[in-house]
Amino acid sequence: MNYRIEKDTMGEVQVPADVYWGAQTQRSIENFKIAQDINKMPKEIIKAFAYLKKAAALTNLELGVLSQEKADAIAQVCDEILEGKLDDQFPLVVWQTGSGTQSNMNANEVIAYRAHVLHGGALTDKDKFLHPNDDVNKSQSSNDTFPTAMHIAAYKMLVETTIPGIEKLRDTLAKKSSEFMHVVKIGRTHFMDATPLTLGQEFSGYVSQLNHGLKAIKNSLPHLSELALGGTAVGTGINTPKGYAALVAKHIAQLTGLSFITAENKFEALAAHDAIVEAHGALKTVAVSLMKIANDIRMLSSGPRSGIGEIFIPDNEPGSSIMPGKVNPTQCEALTMIVAQVLGNDVAINVGGSMGHFELNVFKPVIIYNFLHSARLVGDGCVSFNDKCAAGIEPIEANIKKHVDNSLMLVTALNPKIGYYKAAEIAQKAHKQGTTLKEMAVQLGYLTPEEFDQWVVPANMVGDLNQ
Amino acid sequence: MNYRIEKDTMGEVQVPADVYWGAQTQRSIENFKIAQDINKMPKEIIKAFAYLKKAAALTNLELGVLSQEKADAIAQVCDEILEGKLDDQFPLVVWQTGSGTQSNMNANEVIAYRAHVLHGGALTDKDKFLHPNDDVNKSQSSNDTFPTAMHIAAYKMLVETTIPGIEKLRDTLAKKSSEFMHVVKIGRTHFMDATPLTLGQEFSGYVSQLNHGLKAIKNSLPHLSELALGGTAVGTGINTPKGYAALVAKHIAQLTGLSFITAENKFEALAAHDAIVEAHGALKTVAVSLMKIANDIRMLSSGPRSGIGEIFIPDNEPGSSIMPGKVNPTQCEALTMIVAQVLGNDVAINVGGSMGHFELNVFKPVIIYNFLHSARLVGDGCVSFNDKCAAGIEPIEANIKKHVDNSLMLVTALNPKIGYYKAAEIAQKAHKQGTTLKEMAVQLGYLTPEEFDQWVVPANMVGDLNQ
Amino acid sequence: MNYRIEKDTMGEVQVPADVYWGAQTQRSIENFKIAQDINKMPKEIIKAFAYLKKAAALTNLELGVLSQEKADAIAQVCDEILEGKLDDQFPLVVWQTGSGTQSNMNANEVIAYRAHVLHGGALTDKDKFLHPNDDVNKSQSSNDTFPTAMHIAAYKMLVETTIPGIEKLRDTLAKKSSEFMHVVKIGRTHFMDATPLTLGQEFSGYVSQLNHGLKAIKNSLPHLSELALGGTAVGTGINTPKGYAALVAKHIAQLTGLSFITAENKFEALAAHDAIVEAHGALKTVAVSLMKIANDIRMLSSGPRSGIGEIFIPDNEPGSSIMPGKVNPTQCEALTMIVAQVLGNDVAINVGGSMGHFELNVFKPVIIYNFLHSARLVGDGCVSFNDKCAAGIEPIEANIKKHVDNSLMLVTALNPKIGYYKAAEIAQKAHKQGTTLKEMAVQLGYLTPEEFDQWVVPANMVGDLNQ
Amino acid sequence: MNYRIEKDTMGEVQVPADVYWGAQTQRSIENFKIAQDINKMPKEIIKAFAYLKKAAALTNLELGVLSQEKADAIAQVCDEILEGKLDDQFPLVVWQTGSGTQSNMNANEVIAYRAHVLHGGALTDKDKFLHPNDDVNKSQSSNDTFPTAMHIAAYKMLVETTIPGIEKLRDTLAKKSSEFMHVVKIGRTHFMDATPLTLGQEFSGYVSQLNHGLKAIKNSLPHLSELALGGTAVGTGINTPKGYAALVAKHIAQLTGLSFITAENKFEALAAHDAIVEAHGALKTVAVSLMKIANDIRMLSSGPRSGIGEIFIPDNEPGSSIMPGKVNPTQCEALTMIVAQVLGNDVAINVGGSMGHFELNVFKPVIIYNFLHSARLVGDGCVSFNDKCAAGIEPIEANIKKHVDNSLMLVTALNPKIGYYKAAEIAQKAHKQGTTLKEMAVQLGYLTPEEFDQWVVPANMVGDLNQ
Repeated sequence: MNYRIEKDTMGEVQVPADVYWGAQTQRSIENFKIAQDINKMPKEIIKAFAYLKKAAALTNLELGVLSQEKADAIAQVCDEILEGKLDDQFPLVVWQTGSGTQSNMNANEVIAYRAHVLHGGALTDKDKFLHPNDDVNKSQSSNDTFPTAMHIAAYKMLVETTIPGIEKLRDTLAKKSSEFMHVVKIGRTHFMDATPLTLGQEFSGYVSQLNHGLKAIKNSLPHLSELALGGTAVGTGINTPKGYAALVAKHIAQLTGLSFITAENKFEALAAHDAIVEAHGALKTVAVSLMKIANDIRMLSSGPRSGIGEIFIPDNEPGSSIMPGKVNPTQCEALTMIVAQVLGNDVAINVGGSMGHFELNVFKPVIIYNFLHSARLVGDGCVSFNDKCAAGIEPIEANIKKHVDNSLMLVTALNPKIGYYKAAEIAQKAHKQGTTLKEMAVQLGYLTPEEFDQWVVPANMVGDLNQ
Repeated sequence: MNYRIEKDTMGEVQVPADVYWGAQTQRSIENFKIAQDINKMPKEIIKAFAYLKKAAALTNLELGVLSQEKADAIAQVCDEILEGKLDDQFPLVVWQTGSGTQSNMNANEVIAYRAHVLHGGALTDKDKFLHPNDDVNKSQSSNDTFPTAMHIAAYKMLVETTIPGIEKLRDTLAKKSSEFMHVVKIGRTHFMDATPLTLGQEFSGYVSQLNHGLKAIKNSLPHLSELALGGTAVGTGINTPKGYAALVAKHIAQLTGLSFITAENKFEALAAHDAIVEAHGALKTVAVSLMKIANDIRMLSSGPRSGIGEIFIPDNEPGSSIMPGKVNPTQCEALTMIVAQVLGNDVAINVGGSMGHFELNVFKPVIIYNFLHSARLVGDGCVSFNDKCAAGIEPIEANIKKHVDNSLMLVTALNPKIGYYKAAEIAQKAHKQGTTLKEMAVQLGYLTPEEFDQWVVPANMVGDLNQ
Repeated sequence: MNYRIEKDTMGEVQVPADVYWGAQTQRSIENFKIAQDINKMPKEIIKAFAYLKKAAALTNLELGVLSQEKADAIAQVCDEILEGKLDDQFPLVVWQTGSGTQSNMNANEVIAYRAHVLHGGALTDKDKFLHPNDDVNKSQSSNDTFPTAMHIAAYKMLVETTIPGIEKLRDTLAKKSSEFMHVVKIGRTHFMDATPLTLGQEFSGYVSQLNHGLKAIKNSLPHLSELALGGTAVGTGINTPKGYAALVAKHIAQLTGLSFITAENKFEALAAHDAIVEAHGALKTVAVSLMKIANDIRMLSSGPRSGIGEIFIPDNEPGSSIMPGKVNPTQCEALTMIVAQVLGNDVAINVGGSMGHFELNVFKPVIIYNFLHSARLVGDGCVSFNDKCAAGIEPIEANIKKHVDNSLMLVTALNPKIGYYKAAEIAQKAHKQGTTLKEMAVQLGYLTPEEFDQWVVPANMVGDLNQ
Repeated sequence: MNYRIEKDTMGEVQVPADVYWGAQTQRSIENFKIAQDINKMPKEIIKAFAYLKKAAALTNLELGVLSQEKADAIAQVCDEILEGKLDDQFPLVVWQTGSGTQSNMNANEVIAYRAHVLHGGALTDKDKFLHPNDDVNKSQSSNDTFPTAMHIAAYKMLVETTIPGIEKLRDTLAKKSSEFMHVVKIGRTHFMDATPLTLGQEFSGYVSQLNHGLKAIKNSLPHLSELALGGTAVGTGINTPKGYAALVAKHIAQLTGLSFITAENKFEALAAHDAIVEAHGALKTVAVSLMKIANDIRMLSSGPRSGIGEIFIPDNEPGSSIMPGKVNPTQCEALTMIVAQVLGNDVAINVGGSMGHFELNVFKPVIIYNFLHSARLVGDGCVSFNDKCAAGIEPIEANIKKHVDNSLMLVTALNPKIGYYKAAEIAQKAHKQGTTLKEMAVQLGYLTPEEFDQWVVPANMVGDLNQ
């Protein structure tokens, strides 16, 4: 490979001849040979850097500390990054300095050197049109840019992927709940037969869970909308022009179309990532809901002959390499694996989030890596589960009817008529002797057959369906 | 010990002669010999049962399904429970049925049998004035009472203990932040010397963290305010009179003085505990904040001679059994241990919360046990930390001044004057040669002594203190 | 209440007149008002202190630094503590100094002052026969006594409660596995019908899990057997007589009957609790196994009419306060709740264990609190589950036979005869048309009825049962 | 793009014309559009499949159920996979069916179709030389191949990457411990000054931690060495020839050079992943150790002027984009971020591991994904930390000496001479009045200057350095 020499404050570094990055990026590649093939800094962070570097340039221009020509040059490269044209210029991994300084410098270097080339220069020129630190990073520090990129990326992922994914699934489940509202089925508590409800009621619980989860995620957005930018090195805003913080947040809001504001307290914004911890607390709540929903659906669809078999879910692929004709609830499995991952990611974020010291939390990359992973997985997972499973759910009426007809727990309807103890006696004896409730109720002399038929009507035991 | 015989639907059970509980409570004692000395069902759950049993009696009375005499009798015993007079009548542990049925029956039995005695009866009477199931549990199921008790207990703990505790600490830290707003000190990022800020600014970050955390907790209250009661066995409300659910929630709100409402969806309310998962997600966020704050304070107070030593914290007790005169940051230690516990409890709650099946989640006791533990610990921990540590924090001005005067990172103020690279050269050479920045800056010929004194002024590097 | 005045190096403290504890214990009560009613320091730690204080006294005596009279006096009180006579003299909670200093001083004070009384003195005497620091704590520090108490308590709990509990359950499951070895039943993968196995084979997997888990726990014992005592303040053993560390470990081994040794490296033994982290890693592995086993058993026993219903588990109590005659798998529920707790405790231990700094980890109380909780719960939980559930499991042969006879996955036996694709076609068409495999196989012309009967024999599909 | 048509038991699927995979792989791509750009099935699993498919072919050949020609063809493609020539033929992600069936079929298809091409056929041929199910998957099921691949990959990663990485760091720390064994420094407990020890002693604690951690990992290898292969669909070994299980394990052991054996109990091996849970329990123990070590090292190296500054660590890169000349402990940060990840991964594995049901755990991909991630990160992280940080650690003797000379805790040496209380008085008064211990000791009349000099010698307070 051909190389060129780049310099930083520590001296010279050999860099591949044709890359736009410089000395500090290269040092990071060499200093952190940790899972480099699998743990690249998330691309959402790179794009967030493009937004914020452009916003900073525009702000520096407006506040009179950067020339129009330089601001334009920075903005032009940032647009290229947003278009994905420079994806291969960001080789760094999550496992680097905990402030994300090296990814900030990666952005600074690529923007400066790419702009220099666009400006007609050569990568080998000693002096370049833009300086990574003095121009591209002007009025900034890693310590405020990286957390700003974290919030931009997290907020965008939540509103563009996670929330729409959950809403899509919620809408499908709501539609199914309506469709199935009059399908009376046996209830199950403790995995044991219980009083009846309708399949639509059962599904309405899932809808309610997801609605509450969506609200929890949305509650976390205001904290995420606060941006650290303008705090620079330790939160005091050293080396920023007056009015910078509020203005740069306004520019980021305009560029992204999202309602970002400057953080009221920059010291928190650098030293803690409670906003991410809080938002992931909402994400894990949704994950917990999804585990419940996916488990129910796979158990309700279990069988086909020796399980519960009350609903049909789509057959998407052959289920077994050895058992011919087997079909499995694979979308439920992918979704519940995602839940396991999100519950793990939550702990990684808690550990990282709790260990900020003094003016900086230096677990930034691992925190945002796990957050974006979860937010993406929940969003994608809900869409996949929706499209390939939930949308195709249908009741298997024959099995549903058989189960409800056999149920001993219909006896509960008799409590107000004959009391809990006599009702229990009917159920227990019917269970032991394998009879129906009606037969046993009459045999014990507690009811006439007519009374039984009048009082024990599954469809009357499911409450008001129009609520 | 003397015994009497009690019966339930499964047969006879020997019960200690003078206790108010009956057969089902006794069965639970005998069936679950698991950590019985250390894991009693939290007393907050017992009190919550008293509120809800009283509210149910009043509602049943109003709706015409319970007599005035029986309702009064139930209410009277509930008041005794709330006064703590019957604490020893609730012997059950967390590790029982996952629906909490046995604790519900414990409440039903104690209320029924104590009322019978108050009514002039004897515990050995075969027929009693109140029936545990048919009267005390009327219009209820374990499946809706236990989750209702969970929400009552959780909500009360949050608003009566947790939030006030955090607010108390927040207020003290805000006061300290104001007092220390002009104490210029060295900043630290990556544990390394950085540009200066004031001690008040540093503390303002803690205040901001706690304010955000309080908001997160409060955001979780509406979901917690939803009560399951009225859903009975599976959420359909079987065996409840019309209008019961809304009215019983209103009674609970009146009795507790807290804004409870009936859950819009009872199926979720029985089958999932996302409200608890969500609220604990907020609690763990505060825990993460507290770890950061307590760590900072113990490190800032470290020494007395070979640490950082920038703040004084109160000496509360001798710190060592072997090292005479040693004083330790013990309140920081108690608080950070609490954080470890809360982060663990969060996982227990996630695991339990994720594993509801069909119409019921049967991890109820372990979920609420962990939630109440965390909520209590955070509340008590903040008060203890506040009273015995935070309230007494004072700056150690001599050390603070020495650190800021020595700092090499004051060089950052020169970036806009001479550029990042020359500034770096000054700092690096001063570090290697052990000189001051000023000496090196002048020696390198980049500034005059006068320029240095004009440009490098720590007090000018901390931004606007009046924000 | 009456008080007396006690003194420590910080001054005077009012102490209840009749308690054996002194100034430092009292300070801790007043300084740490955190969950005092529910989080007492585990009694196992108090007993472990009694062992080690006695062992230290004997060692100090043998090494000539403590008089026979004083050693005897210390030993006498330690025996009283071991007998449980002084339980109410240990009022402190987990949430104290992270080194456990205050519990060490609690032990020192109680031993000194109780001995003084036994020696004929009065608690109000200014000078006492034994000095808490200079005599009882001689050759010790909190920093080596507390971790020693942690290892003693943890090791004892594992070998006396946890391991025997798991073994008891393992033995029952092994017995059931043998008994059920020829009960051919349908297999289930992905909750879907699969090829058959025997119920005994299914249970043999549980036995294998627990055997591996027991091995994992036992693998962790050697690290736990290493005692910190002799390291004193920072691991160097300052203020200990020559030969002390090895000898005191020997005494502890003799007193407890367990194979304790002195830690090879005392610096680790004070500054880290990896031995506890490691041992709890084994405990959580067993917890994970127990979740699987308990889930299987409750699902296999589900029904009675609309579930899987392949095994019977004992009816221990009425299962519902509203549904008469309902019986639930409550032991499974208690056990799986325990698993949730253990998985949470694991995280608390990891967080605490990871945060030792320099010469000391100051999360000792929270670490051992969680460890002992888990070890106790697993032990007690296995015994309860064993006695009240596993021991009574019986197959429900009618349901088992029905399920295996209906299964479409018996078609797998035809792969080697007609290939996977044709076998799949048979299964799929039989499923859609609701026929038996045999009917469809013959109808499709792939086999004769005789071939089917010869090749598709469930009992021939379960492999070698004599392995 | 050009396509060809492939078929499976569910019908036709369009597949890119030139890929070696077939219908089932393609279905998975289309059915699981979840984080496809970032969560590919780990390449270690793909290689493990190559080992096991080759071993299965050789075993089938030896046992007479596969022809030499077919076995050779399978082996040839497996070798290509192991050489990395077919990496782009494995497009599937972690989030698929929980049994990993689709990755097993991906391997089966690629091997069959690549072999067909090598055999002179065309991908568009309807009949191919090898059948994915009937030949490549002969005597196998996803349910035993995927867990076998998990164990092969996990074991290999541990012995080839994780253990050597930890050992490398352990060796460096041991070397440093020896070098620094006579550098007397102040001890610190609770972040507060304590009695002295040597820097070498401090480092010996780290060595001891890693040695114990290595032992814990090695303890987990025997369980990991057990292979599921031969259990096929549900553990019974249906459709395998006699002797297959033991022989195929022997072949895998030979091919990998690692000591694999056939699992004694195949039912556990399919239905549970306790071996992975257990091994990751050891990994997280090492992670906990690494957090402690890395935290110590960054705090010991903190400063350069306002921290502890007792050790020098290498300057690897400029530390700040805004603060010139700043150098940060970036390797410590990368390593502690890894720890956060491992602690999170542990929970993901616990959740997945606990949720096997009946004959299969269907969280296989998420479990192994997290395991391999942790094992890789710990191995790579230790090497990076070793090479770029630990290997260059040097004491800063001036600061070390200053700290130990100033220490008040040297007073501990006086306990045996004048008692704990008088010693405390000396330390407390010296602290308040800012004097030296010696001045105060003499001033209080407890010692002569000569006694002080004789008794208080830091180098005599560090115990025996030759242990």
